[in-house]
Amino acid sequence: MIIARILGTVVSTQKDPRLQGKKLLIVKPINLDGTDQSGYLVAVDTVGAGFHEKVIVVGGSSARMAEGNKDCPVDSAIIGVIDRIDFIPADGKTE
Amino acid sequence: MIIARILGTVVSTQKDPRLQGKKLLIVKPINLDGTDQSGYLVAVDTVGAGFHEKVIVVGGSSARMAEGNKDCPVDSAIIGVIDRIDFIPADGKTE
Amino acid sequence: MIIARILGTVVSTQKDPRLQGKKLLIVKPINLDGTDQSGYLVAVDTVGAGFHEKVIVVGGSSARMAEGNKDCPVDSAIIGVIDRIDFIPADGKTE
Amino acid sequence: MIIARILGTVVSTQKDPRLQGKKLLIVKPINLDGTDQSGYLVAVDTVGAGFHEKVIVVGGSSARMAEGNKDCPVDSAIIGVIDRIDFIPADGKTE
Amino acid sequence: MIIARILGTVVSTQKDPRLQGKKLLIVKPINLDGTDQSGYLVAVDTVGAGFHEKVIVVGGSSARMAEGNKDCPVDSAIIGVIDRIDFIPADGKTE
Repeated sequence: MIIARILGTVVSTQKDPRLQGKKLLIVKPINLDGTDQSGYLVAVDTVGAGFHEKVIVVGGSSARMAEGNKDCPVDSAIIGVIDRIDFIPADGKTE
Repeated sequence: MIIARILGTVVSTQKDPRLQGKKLLIVKPINLDGTDQSGYLVAVDTVGAGFHEKVIVVGGSSARMAEGNKDCPVDSAIIGVIDRIDFIPADGKTE
Repeated sequence: MIIARILGTVVSTQKDPRLQGKKLLIVKPINLDGTDQSGYLVAVDTVGAGFHEKVIVVGGSSARMAEGNKDCPVDSAIIGVIDRIDFIPADGKTE
Repeated sequence: MIIARILGTVVSTQKDPRLQGKKLLIVKPINLDGTDQSGYLVAVDTVGAGFHEKVIVVGGSSARMAEGNKDCPVDSAIIGVIDRIDFIPADGKTE
Repeated sequence: MIIARILGTVVSTQKDPRLQGKKLLIVKPINLDGTDQSGYLVAVDTVGAGFHEKVIVVGGSSARMAEGNKDCPVDSAIIGVIDRIDFIPADGKTE
């Protein structure tokens, strides 16, 4: 999975019947220091993520395993909102 | 998924039987500002997209979930025509 | 899918039983103007493509949907020979 | 698969129900000489890997084949801790 | 599929149960002229390939179609040893 932030919404009327009612968001992959990566993805929001939140995005066939996406023609889905990332110090004593 | 625009049509007579009757389009991925990315894809049109329209393209096995593509040897499909993209301002008050 | 041209044949005696009798070709992805891209792929020919022809190549699990590839350990297959590509002029009047 | 080392933990409360109880780790792909590659992945730990250990990471739908990941929306999983890598000398006599 | 050569062996004791008994090799993708590409992969050997041999490597879910890999958490497998590659001359008369 990758980490991304939410930039906006894609509005589409003429679309695959299995996309009806799905929220399609523009997400931008970010680096571990919070800066933007190049590029973007269109992902289905399956967890009710708020705008600008940092989210976990799953790709490929596994996007269809996200809540509500079964058999849908989607290859990218938001599956979690990130509270924080705990980095491990060099002595490994975080846990 | 990615956003792309339609450049043309691929004409192929000698092809896999499951591609019969499918419309194979050349699509060019675009950036969020509407400029072209490098590269291109051959994608099956499943929503009757018009030329030069901006479309949503799904890749990988999920392309076979698009209307009419079940069990077809395709890895890229057009699944929606984009009306517009709503970008979220920094104060997040769009919704 | 991508467009490629055929460069040669891979000869392999010691191989997975499900590859027996399959024609493994070296294909080179090409740009829309016909020039070569970098890189290459080994793809199963499923349509009897001739050498140097421009072909459509499908990747990933969908390569197993091509004629004769069911349950085979292949991730790339030639599924069509390209007759021509019709590019759409800016006024969109091709169709 | 790729080789990576573990950098930290992703904490997420609002997430897909099938991610409940899963340990989501930040992993950084490394080169064969042990130096870091650019980029990172969020992967599910399925083998109880310790921090800073070198691990094997599987991607795509096969991440769902790892212990406990069946039908989960995950595209990356840690499936082994690496003890060592034996490189083969030019004369090929390691085995 | 890609062409690679075998560089060494990954030794892992703590790993997914379905990897028990599998031979995990480090392979390096090569160019058509035999030179190394950057990067590497960890692949399951399913054909008894010898060190330094040139092999065919399949990726993604199709790696699970290789002999013995059914339902295993692997995304890369060696499925053939290459005897030779026959390139087609410009006049196309090889066959």
